[in-house]
Amino acid sequence: MKLNFSTVEWEENTTGVCLSQGKVRILDQTLLPWEINYKDIGTVEGIVGAINEMRIRGAPLIGVIGAYGVAIAAQKAKDVKEIKEAIERLEHTRPTAYNLFCGLTRMKKIVEVVSEFSLLKSCLLQEANKIKKEDEFLCEQIGKNGETLIPKNAQILTHCNAGALATCGIGTALAPIYIAKNRIKKIFVSETRPVLQGARLTAWELQQAEIPVTLICDSVRGVVIKEVDLCIVGADRIARNGDIANKIGTYTLAVLAKTHNIPFYVAAPSTTFDLSIESGEQIPIELRNPDEVRKIGNYEIAPKNIDIFNPSFDVTPNEYITGFITENGIQKPPFK
Amino acid sequence: MKLNFSTVEWEENTTGVCLSQGKVRILDQTLLPWEINYKDIGTVEGIVGAINEMRIRGAPLIGVIGAYGVAIAAQKAKDVKEIKEAIERLEHTRPTAYNLFCGLTRMKKIVEVVSEFSLLKSCLLQEANKIKKEDEFLCEQIGKNGETLIPKNAQILTHCNAGALATCGIGTALAPIYIAKNRIKKIFVSETRPVLQGARLTAWELQQAEIPVTLICDSVRGVVIKEVDLCIVGADRIARNGDIANKIGTYTLAVLAKTHNIPFYVAAPSTTFDLSIESGEQIPIELRNPDEVRKIGNYEIAPKNIDIFNPSFDVTPNEYITGFITENGIQKPPFK
Repeated sequence: MKLNFSTVEWEENTTGVCLSQGKVRILDQTLLPWEINYKDIGTVEGIVGAINEMRIRGAPLIGVIGAYGVAIAAQKAKDVKEIKEAIERLEHTRPTAYNLFCGLTRMKKIVEVVSEFSLLKSCLLQEANKIKKEDEFLCEQIGKNGETLIPKNAQILTHCNAGALATCGIGTALAPIYIAKNRIKKIFVSETRPVLQGARLTAWELQQAEIPVTLICDSVRGVVIKEVDLCIVGADRIARNGDIANKIGTYTLAVLAKTHNIPFYVAAPSTTFDLSIESGEQIPIELRNPDEVRKIGNYEIAPKNIDIFNPSFDVTPNEYITGFITENGIQKPPFK
Repeated sequence: MKLNFSTVEWEENTTGVCLSQGKVRILDQTLLPWEINYKDIGTVEGIVGAINEMRIRGAPLIGVIGAYGVAIAAQKAKDVKEIKEAIERLEHTRPTAYNLFCGLTRMKKIVEVVSEFSLLKSCLLQEANKIKKEDEFLCEQIGKNGETLIPKNAQILTHCNAGALATCGIGTALAPIYIAKNRIKKIFVSETRPVLQGARLTAWELQQAEIPVTLICDSVRGVVIKEVDLCIVGADRIARNGDIANKIGTYTLAVLAKTHNIPFYVAAPSTTFDLSIESGEQIPIELRNPDEVRKIGNYEIAPKNIDIFNPSFDVTPNEYITGFITENGIQKPPFK
């Protein structure tokens, strides 16, 4: 499976001598599908901004970019303290996706175990590259395990973007779809208000891959659910009992699926599983800027001064989830 | 309850002599909440266009404007045939809202019983005025009957716009809310993609009336449902068995309400009840232009050439509906 874009790449400087000139090249996802624009980021502030503004998003990808953020910080750091401060800043970008903390924990471990400061920079970069490489592999495994669930002439409903754009590989929820491409009749994609990752990202990447896609408003899922064989979504964090946090609207889809006896699968790598928490109640849910709802582009859709409630995620209890598509197979909670 | 806008008014020409100069003044709802713009329409083509483009919308209001469309046509008609042709054109504007057919049936009856052509024009106008006046009264009664369901410090979730803007009075779903205004803690309004009647119309009219409102994306209903005392929505058509068609997304809300044991009420006047059909399966569902989804203002939100499925309504089966708030009280099916 060859993709014609890359979500994140480490770019050495072209003079090729000085490691401290390396940058992270990201595909700016706020500009999709209108513009394929790669942006080089060379500071931790730049990485923090790109995560906050959702130029780069998707739980697994946030995990990778967070790690690169530490590698970037290390390039210019005068001491370990500065690196630790950078890790702390990165930890405070977005609260829900566990992969960020999973990645940063690995980077912290490197900081702890590599005592020689001159070595630390290259060890951190190596670790970030390794996390990226592993993510690619995890996607592939999720795809292979998940494709067994896809029947001939499959119609599948997915929400938000848990595709290649959310990872360094072929995605999580979309990985089985890419691998079973020839058996797909249609993928229904809900637009995913407010930030429209379904309309802008999932529809775009499936179109690139020549997989038949039909875009619907989120509210149309109640109609389309009757037509599909299964639902597959990603996750931003999974608790020990199998409760998940994922993009706002996932819970509603899970309720619709249960009502209509449609299998509802969550695809996620082990880096999304937070085994330190018992249930979904303990997952912090990010509230984002009301302007995400109020404005679409520069187009205002609501009266001025109206109160807006804009949670970025919701929690779906485990009883709504048929199974978890992971790199280790189709799994069920409790997770250990 | 005094509103500071009027959805539709018959305007005699200022010279005051010639009935055939009358026009219908509508509040153009596509321009709300940014602009309060009244538009005079003097031809049946103008009325047809205003309905198709949703400059005027809402099931009860479509019923009234349809009747005025006949009155407008009669002004310029040379014979009864022309009036009948106009009725036929109006019947083909929008297929789902029953109130349109209910209103046009009354107008047809006038055409049948008034044999003198010279009298027909004024009789048709009189009937349209009567339908408008009745609609105002029906709203008031629905409000009085529905307000008994609203507890102190009520939090209520509504979808789309079944407010004053959808009628000639104080609305259907919003009528009980206006009357119980002092007991309202908060109204949650879902934005209602694709045409955003919740964000643009309901949020606006409740704000005008100084009723506390919180706007949410449609997907956030799955979170907010846990916080509300009840849901109230309108309807575009109600079958004998109590199945309803209403704005896309209503079914999803009904499923969420049932899952969380939250009462789910439908507010509608008798003009919305189609006693000629047994169940919701017989209600024609309008598919609208994909551009409603693809573009928000002039802002394109999806890749070019993407397939879009854009049904304007969905059907909610009777078992999801706690009760029907009508001018005759809180009712349950079967309806006779």
